[in-house]
Amino acid sequence: MTEDPMNCRAIGIVRSPFKERGDAPCQGRRTDEISSIEISPEYQEGLDGLKTGDDLFVLCWFDRSDRSVLKTRRQGTEDGPLRGVFSTRSPARPNPISLTLVKLVEITGGTLRVRGLEALDNTPVLDIKPYSEGIDTPRETMGCDGKLL
Amino acid sequence: MTEDPMNCRAIGIVRSPFKERGDAPCQGRRTDEISSIEISPEYQEGLDGLKTGDDLFVLCWFDRSDRSVLKTRRQGTEDGPLRGVFSTRSPARPNPISLTLVKLVEITGGTLRVRGLEALDNTPVLDIKPYSEGIDTPRETMGCDGKLL
Repeated sequence: MTEDPMNCRAIGIVRSPFKERGDAPCQGRRTDEISSIEISPEYQEGLDGLKTGDDLFVLCWFDRSDRSVLKTRRQGTEDGPLRGVFSTRSPARPNPISLTLVKLVEITGGTLRVRGLEALDNTPVLDIKPYSEGIDTPRETMGCDGKLL
Repeated sequence: MTEDPMNCRAIGIVRSPFKERGDAPCQGRRTDEISSIEISPEYQEGLDGLKTGDDLFVLCWFDRSDRSVLKTRRQGTEDGPLRGVFSTRSPARPNPISLTLVKLVEITGGTLRVRGLEALDNTPVLDIKPYSEGIDTPRETMGCDGKLL
């Protein structure tokens, strides 16, 4: 394992209509709100190739999540059984890294406007990865041609 | 943005047949090799609820990746155009956090045997999240019932 510390760098920040925990949906899929991601100038070169309509995984650092939690309930359930956090998508986990699939609505310079992000306002952004049906869908749902059945 | 440092914690480590960069496929989807993920004792409680056959996103810290790269070529291409890393799935990026969908073949105590992981041996594991068709697939490929068309 590396000797270097695993320190994340914020490549940008979320500007979102969700100001407090209670405001955010438990999954971005459940909102049509548009959020903005402002990429810092020193990282904007990394955006080259992104275009409107792209499906993107956005990884954020959920800085208001509890990193000490190992058992929780499925998001959206109040009375479900306790489960290990690694079997849920709860934001509370040892490394509060979120994974949300969004639609890129517009990109202007270093600002991305996206639909489907559930992050709170001012959440640090760690990474953006293009969704790829061929690698991001379980194999049994794919045909021989690599397309969804 | 948080004042606290965004320091990741290794929840476990990858035991993989891929010992050096050249050994690993550019995407886990391109291998049927079985890798193991050894979760550290203090985090094993978080595995509760995982079962054989689950489709899981594994997030690792690619500690041998170059964090200074902002332009690269699509993985698997030698002569393609340079693109911003955020429009590719290259392991070289400011935060070398990998995202790989794997199949859980077996879980025994704190050891997960998975198919489809491309991580090098001894790669630190940051997180495990269950794949959910409803939130991890672009909406236009879903029917009204939330199932893939």
